[in-house]
Amino acid sequence: MSLNLPPVPDLHQPDLAAALRHKISRKTVPEGALGRMAALAERLGLILGTAEPHLSAPQLLVCAADHGIAARGVSAYPSDVTWQMVGNFLAGGALVSVLARQHGIAQTVVDCGVRHDFAPAPGLVIRKIAPGTQDSSQGPAMSAAQCAQALANGIELVKALPGNALLLGEMGIGNTSAASLLVARLGDIDVAEVTGAGTGLDAAGIARKTAVLRQALAANAAAAAPLDALAALGGFEIATLTGAVLQAANERRVIVVDGFIASSAVLVASRIAPAVLQRCVFAHRSDERGHARLLDLLGADPLLALGLRVGEGSGAVLAWPLLESSGRILNEMASFESAGVSDKA
Amino acid sequence: MSLNLPPVPDLHQPDLAAALRHKISRKTVPEGALGRMAALAERLGLILGTAEPHLSAPQLLVCAADHGIAARGVSAYPSDVTWQMVGNFLAGGALVSVLARQHGIAQTVVDCGVRHDFAPAPGLVIRKIAPGTQDSSQGPAMSAAQCAQALANGIELVKALPGNALLLGEMGIGNTSAASLLVARLGDIDVAEVTGAGTGLDAAGIARKTAVLRQALAANAAAAAPLDALAALGGFEIATLTGAVLQAANERRVIVVDGFIASSAVLVASRIAPAVLQRCVFAHRSDERGHARLLDLLGADPLLALGLRVGEGSGAVLAWPLLESSGRILNEMASFESAGVSDKA
Repeated sequence: MSLNLPPVPDLHQPDLAAALRHKISRKTVPEGALGRMAALAERLGLILGTAEPHLSAPQLLVCAADHGIAARGVSAYPSDVTWQMVGNFLAGGALVSVLARQHGIAQTVVDCGVRHDFAPAPGLVIRKIAPGTQDSSQGPAMSAAQCAQALANGIELVKALPGNALLLGEMGIGNTSAASLLVARLGDIDVAEVTGAGTGLDAAGIARKTAVLRQALAANAAAAAPLDALAALGGFEIATLTGAVLQAANERRVIVVDGFIASSAVLVASRIAPAVLQRCVFAHRSDERGHARLLDLLGADPLLALGLRVGEGSGAVLAWPLLESSGRILNEMASFESAGVSDKA
Repeated sequence: MSLNLPPVPDLHQPDLAAALRHKISRKTVPEGALGRMAALAERLGLILGTAEPHLSAPQLLVCAADHGIAARGVSAYPSDVTWQMVGNFLAGGALVSVLARQHGIAQTVVDCGVRHDFAPAPGLVIRKIAPGTQDSSQGPAMSAAQCAQALANGIELVKALPGNALLLGEMGIGNTSAASLLVARLGDIDVAEVTGAGTGLDAAGIARKTAVLRQALAANAAAAAPLDALAALGGFEIATLTGAVLQAANERRVIVVDGFIASSAVLVASRIAPAVLQRCVFAHRSDERGHARLLDLLGADPLLALGLRVGEGSGAVLAWPLLESSGRILNEMASFESAGVSDKA
């Protein structure tokens, strides 16, 4: 297939930025006292292109897929957990589903390539490329055509969603391996520095995982460009998310980035279109080894650091109320003038 | 007046703690992956005495008062800001009011001793001890009787509130000075180490403030016991909050602690009844110098660190959705068994 990626222009809005900073500076708190909530409010305004930003109909996209490399013992859990967790999302019992319900965030679960045939179900969208990728330690995880199809799926999925905010979620046994590979390759970092416990490997397990990942990098040594690396080392859910990120950025939706896997999709997208990062809010710092390094690579400092390493989009959803708060600060807080409060002498 | 402080017994619940930890361990995430949300869920269950904790009718108490020591130039803002901000709370335009509305938290504003006569207004409770404390740099900020009355007011205020969670808020130009004095005296710390910019002093202003605080400590050198220190160095809002904390702890409400000032009230309360801390959730790490040291003193590691230094209860309200999430994790998340998800091999 031919690949048409949506353009993501630079958001150059110096007048709006100045207006937002002035508006925030007049709110009835001491100068600078809003801390990171001020920066978040400014970012929200810049993404949505207004000094009165209103978030509407937030959408959580949970992209699920299996990974051939999981057969090499890189995860503490069996691949069957991927499809079982899809059922858990649909039943509303998974962490991210519980949190999304709490905050009124719509959840869409996408089978991007799970090794299981799902019956149709409300809230489940089938965009299966194949029942799992190939084992990247032996060659490319997917073909260029498969990768292009997954990107196109992500683009079309976002086009069909309402609202102006997208929360990135994922599920896939083996996908910390894929994310580590992408970060190592695109960030030119030794893979051992960005390889961690995933769902719960011990030190020996991490050592074995690292050795398998070194094989994958060697087996795909030529895959250096972003899309080549994505096809060779990534996963169907990561590629679908990458397309979703590009489309959401094109539409100037607020992109709420979850942990290690979601951030790896943002890394790929930002190497294709750097201005993607202007539309992102990084929600949380995962405890998965490699996320800290990836966040540095992206110049990101997430809002929360709660020691989570769940994925699913759970960190994004936990941070969601802070985004809503930042909008309300702009729209509902009084100014010194409107409230008749004396300013600093 | 005679002072009857509510007892705060130790919560010794090893069976419930074990049941909570087991329940959390069976939730459908990798072992340990819930990070601090697991500890928060456990604490919520222990405070409310059940493995199925439900938060209800959360109450934000914003205690306001003026400080005699403010006349010594320890604040960047004039004392009039205290009563002006009370108006801002009542009109719903202050930061904490906006955030409380977002999260469905009821706000009660208490005039504990503001230098202003308020007309009756919905949401305003008058429990004024005096129009501001005396200047503690010259002698005790309040008499023992005034302090006892403020404590009793806090106790009665909480008794009258519905629900099972109390969020601590405050307003009072000069009250970082009172909090610094209490932390220095009760923590036996050089006051310079816990004295900061408050609403926005520069370095020279902080140096002047520190010198004034040294005078206050010298002028009240004998006030070492918690209640003596509270009377000599504290404020009416801090004393009222101290009473509120003791009563909320007695009733096993969840106490959501805001920043530097609210934490100083918890410090006093915990020196009277150490088991108060078992009922507390520390919401955020303020950028006010001294809060980090105070948190260490209390053995507390707050949920959020967003660089805020507003007070009002704003950090407590920002963290509130995380408390609600922790309850939902216990009550709504599936277990490996109920969801039919394979556990770690």
